[in-house]
Amino acid sequence: MINGHVLSTGNEVLLGDIVDTNSAFLCRQLKSSGITVIKTTAVRDDMAAIVREIQSIASAADICVMTGGLGPTPDDLTAAALAEAAGVKIELDTAALESMKKYFDKRGFDLTPANEKQAMLPKGAKFLENLHGTAPGISMTINKCRFFCMPGVSREMERMFDLKVRPKLYEMTGHAGEIQIIRLMLFGMPESRVGQILSGFGLQFPEIHLGFRVRFPMIEVKLSLLKEVVSDSEEGMDGARQMKQAKLWVMEQLGSIVISDQGLTLAQEVGRLLKKCGQTLSVAESCTGGLVAHLITDVPGASDYFLFSATTYANSAKETILNVSRETLEKNGAVDETTALEMAIGVRTAGGSDWAVSTTGIAGPSGGTEAKPVGTVCIGVAGPSGSNSQRFLLDRGDRERNKQLFAAMSLEMLRRELVKNY
Amino acid sequence: MINGHVLSTGNEVLLGDIVDTNSAFLCRQLKSSGITVIKTTAVRDDMAAIVREIQSIASAADICVMTGGLGPTPDDLTAAALAEAAGVKIELDTAALESMKKYFDKRGFDLTPANEKQAMLPKGAKFLENLHGTAPGISMTINKCRFFCMPGVSREMERMFDLKVRPKLYEMTGHAGEIQIIRLMLFGMPESRVGQILSGFGLQFPEIHLGFRVRFPMIEVKLSLLKEVVSDSEEGMDGARQMKQAKLWVMEQLGSIVISDQGLTLAQEVGRLLKKCGQTLSVAESCTGGLVAHLITDVPGASDYFLFSATTYANSAKETILNVSRETLEKNGAVDETTALEMAIGVRTAGGSDWAVSTTGIAGPSGGTEAKPVGTVCIGVAGPSGSNSQRFLLDRGDRERNKQLFAAMSLEMLRRELVKNY
Repeated sequence: MINGHVLSTGNEVLLGDIVDTNSAFLCRQLKSSGITVIKTTAVRDDMAAIVREIQSIASAADICVMTGGLGPTPDDLTAAALAEAAGVKIELDTAALESMKKYFDKRGFDLTPANEKQAMLPKGAKFLENLHGTAPGISMTINKCRFFCMPGVSREMERMFDLKVRPKLYEMTGHAGEIQIIRLMLFGMPESRVGQILSGFGLQFPEIHLGFRVRFPMIEVKLSLLKEVVSDSEEGMDGARQMKQAKLWVMEQLGSIVISDQGLTLAQEVGRLLKKCGQTLSVAESCTGGLVAHLITDVPGASDYFLFSATTYANSAKETILNVSRETLEKNGAVDETTALEMAIGVRTAGGSDWAVSTTGIAGPSGGTEAKPVGTVCIGVAGPSGSNSQRFLLDRGDRERNKQLFAAMSLEMLRRELVKNY
Repeated sequence: MINGHVLSTGNEVLLGDIVDTNSAFLCRQLKSSGITVIKTTAVRDDMAAIVREIQSIASAADICVMTGGLGPTPDDLTAAALAEAAGVKIELDTAALESMKKYFDKRGFDLTPANEKQAMLPKGAKFLENLHGTAPGISMTINKCRFFCMPGVSREMERMFDLKVRPKLYEMTGHAGEIQIIRLMLFGMPESRVGQILSGFGLQFPEIHLGFRVRFPMIEVKLSLLKEVVSDSEEGMDGARQMKQAKLWVMEQLGSIVISDQGLTLAQEVGRLLKKCGQTLSVAESCTGGLVAHLITDVPGASDYFLFSATTYANSAKETILNVSRETLEKNGAVDETTALEMAIGVRTAGGSDWAVSTTGIAGPSGGTEAKPVGTVCIGVAGPSGSNSQRFLLDRGDRERNKQLFAAMSLEMLRRELVKNY
């Protein structure tokens, strides 16, 4: 295992003025280069703190990618800190200076003395050319750890990583392929239950990592296999086969709550099913207030199957647009299975689609009654071979989460009908 | 100086699957509580690594806020790691268990053995109640460092911080009361420009902290005053007056891009204006696909003014539901100012509302042409005294962000009309 460390420097990170997206980017890149990131840190622009951190990393990691502190101002300390940590001097790197001059000449600027400071590198370090900004990067080995220092500006950093750092990492790791990953999406069970059901996984598949990620109200289960394991093992079972068996085992344990074995969300899976059959969809919403349509239309290409949705908050709109009968509304109220059914049938006709789904309920915080408390939602589905509706009680304590849960449940009811029909 | 440390645990952070926004939030909060964050770290869900990190922090920092690892699954290790680092056992905390039971009962779920594990805390630790999820937090002192452990789910973490952690930090740092805060919401200018325009703030108002938070596509500007300063200063200008002057100065610099001086989002501000006048709204969406209605209905009480929305992806729905003329659609196409105007007028009639807003555009990634590239959006507003529409080019490079930007722009056009009329 090759251990990686990601280090950010900069007061702006520790003041919370910026979100450190660089580290997430670098974690992903290291992983796909075959390196296991064991830790990320961010420290202030403080010489002692940076030196201490570099020394600690140099004794624990094999590779460190570092961002920030390469600029021309006095709080840019990376080169000096590397030198101090390694016990060497800094000196002018003529190649780095040449590269900066070229960059400035091209833009008609003059180098300032402050810029020249940026070409002062620790003795023994190599400069990494920056084609998209002024600050040269630095590559240097301290103890057994190879450091790659890049600018903190994301755009410059990402391009320097791609052009200058990644090829060197590939050389070092002998890396030729990606890690195998399988993603399953679940809906309809709390994370704790899922964890309990899958608690035997580690014993069965010791070489595969099992991870959970809540994407409320769905849960993503991720199986991942490190590159090394992919070669044939003694029993002749290779990584791909292990992964396939692990996936089947997980799906067997979880049963019908697995909505996709491709990591698709409910809206993506519904879209995939509709596209496959060349059929279309309309939506009638009350309590979800446009969220079902929003989720559906977040999927690129949704215009292939999504025709129309009506958010009918007012009862008058339920009557005029969706043709819900006044009698139903007066007798049963807006939040009711029959109303949901008529909404689905009505919007299917209004939209001229093959399928329709409807929601009507009480998202809260107010509006609940004893008979229909906050969290009550009625969902209707209408399709080519009939229609049905159902009532649920799904309160998650606040309006936004209730809307999310109601919307997901309506997509799930629709998904089940779509699966049944094909 | 009180030294703070922010620690995240979770493989998903080190695999780069998620961007660690929790740390940025916590850095900001610690700072505004009078604590200097000296370092942030993220480590894997690995017992030895977490224990080592906790011990290192316990000998260097005064306060550590930690996120993740409180769930019910086997890779949730925080309680066990704290216990090991402190050299104590874990034991059942009956208060934590009671609190979880209450949370589950309210939702009609049963506690599983896996959940009971969540109530096992290190001896000597105190539990922090979680009112917005199942995982109890943990507060514990190791060496001289006080640890506050919160869930990794941002929503739960932020609320637990506000309710349970911040008051304790105030006690420890001597922040005896609330900090004065003013929030301004901006729309229509990039963060870098806003920062540049307000760069003189620090000189003018040295005692007030100026912070930015991107809530795409809006920017929240926060002015905050530390408690100590609020007492009368020598010149007799108290904190409240300073804050008022600072607010006026900022609003003067920024002009019309300030959409609310109460920190309200566009949807909240539009709702406030409609409610104030007792008027109603309908929405016609194409490219925003339900998002405008979703944003409007996320505001509690939206049913007071929001009547109806139609998401008309198909042209046939634009004709039949919104009464857009076939001639307009054939001559000008769906993405067009006249179409947007007819959509707004049509949905105002269909919904029977005082106001209406419409969107039609190309969110991408495909569907653009030379004349109408991805990012083109036409927005219409219809009201009691007339209607108008406008075309914009607002490409942010991906479908989801384009939808967000289009929706915000439509609410902004509506907001301006509402303001004009009163």
